[in-house]
Amino acid sequence: MPRYRLVVEYDGSPFKGWQRQRDLPTVQQTLEEAIARFSSEAPVVHAAGRTDTGVHATGQVVHFDLERQWDAFRIREALNYHLRPAPVVVVLAEQVDESFEARFSAIERHYEYRILNRRAPSALERHQVWHVPVPLDSEAMDEAARSILGHHDFTTFRAAECQAKSPLKTLDRFDVRREGQYVVVIAEARSFLHHQVRSMVGSLKMVGEGKWPVRRMRDALDARDRSRCGPMAPPDGLYLTRVVYP
Amino acid sequence: MPRYRLVVEYDGSPFKGWQRQRDLPTVQQTLEEAIARFSSEAPVVHAAGRTDTGVHATGQVVHFDLERQWDAFRIREALNYHLRPAPVVVVLAEQVDESFEARFSAIERHYEYRILNRRAPSALERHQVWHVPVPLDSEAMDEAARSILGHHDFTTFRAAECQAKSPLKTLDRFDVRREGQYVVVIAEARSFLHHQVRSMVGSLKMVGEGKWPVRRMRDALDARDRSRCGPMAPPDGLYLTRVVYP
Repeated sequence: MPRYRLVVEYDGSPFKGWQRQRDLPTVQQTLEEAIARFSSEAPVVHAAGRTDTGVHATGQVVHFDLERQWDAFRIREALNYHLRPAPVVVVLAEQVDESFEARFSAIERHYEYRILNRRAPSALERHQVWHVPVPLDSEAMDEAARSILGHHDFTTFRAAECQAKSPLKTLDRFDVRREGQYVVVIAEARSFLHHQVRSMVGSLKMVGEGKWPVRRMRDALDARDRSRCGPMAPPDGLYLTRVVYP
Repeated sequence: MPRYRLVVEYDGSPFKGWQRQRDLPTVQQTLEEAIARFSSEAPVVHAAGRTDTGVHATGQVVHFDLERQWDAFRIREALNYHLRPAPVVVVLAEQVDESFEARFSAIERHYEYRILNRRAPSALERHQVWHVPVPLDSEAMDEAARSILGHHDFTTFRAAECQAKSPLKTLDRFDVRREGQYVVVIAEARSFLHHQVRSMVGSLKMVGEGKWPVRRMRDALDARDRSRCGPMAPPDGLYLTRVVYP
């Protein structure tokens, strides 16, 4: 059966996350319904990252199988037609080898976390940034972020309900830069624990506010203790921006 | 009477423009109602640029008078509280000399026009960009834009309903750059005619698509003939970003 890969962009704010749930709007259900409408088939859609409620994506990758062979360009156009008015868009569609798995073939996941750091909230990006009204020291945040790079036990930054077999992960990139009124955090790894990015960003915000010294970020990691994590950042500012394959 | 100046950000998509209209939601009415709620006064709010239906602002400037003296910080906080959930936010508030006029004291207005130039529409910025699916030649657009800089009769790029006394304006900056999937147009002048920026951007798009040679932009200007203007760009991509005072 032909297998198709999509790169998908969505505004997560109206959805209860990626994963299909009975009677709740999710991105997976929205995509599956759009596929059914144009193809009259009902495949399950598998995603590289099962984003939580309110989390956005500019580069989510998914795959699914159809009995029938379609031109990839037509799949993209038909899906974007049938997805309206939901804020979900297919940026790219292509046919892939049937050994391709959006989730298991991925070797790197990139997230961006956007903080609007000014007194006034946002009129234009409501639910699409974390509004932090107190001034943040982005350089201290950057130093704290880099201090936990590498292969570690990330138990401190792991949700209680995380189902990963091991808390060991390798953080390949984690840094912070200021862009005018914004503070932008980039996180890259082969994979992340449940709530890991939001837990780490919540802790970085404590550093940025001056409530934590820079060193406490690394101390929190080394403690391997969830109670040492800062308050978790909200989903609003989080974007899955890219998934890398071999 | 103390006079106050605000810098205001708004998402124009739910509004019928800036200017108060009977029974229609406008930004002016929204701001005036929020001021009335916190101050129990009912001043008229005057804006530097009376943006059209669907046009956004990140740097609109307004002024109004109150009988009572307020701390500017408290005005901003109170307005942002009372403006919710409308997508209108006060970024800055300050008391100004009573000779200050948001509209008549301005010496420069800056607009940005954002085009999303890819096949797929936007999931995250619906109503906040102009989606142009055919590839645009941003360098040709930039050349065409620069060819109409300076002091001219802009009749070609002027709405039929424009109320300005003269079609003579001086375009101080007009250029185009590509930013990844976006094509961004910047326009700066002391003042603009009604629909001037959207008319000019609509014509630039014809150049970007290759339907007009670069030279036709200048020819259209020189013709001083509205029928020579390209189809007007929609309001979605237009932002009033800054108003400059002496």
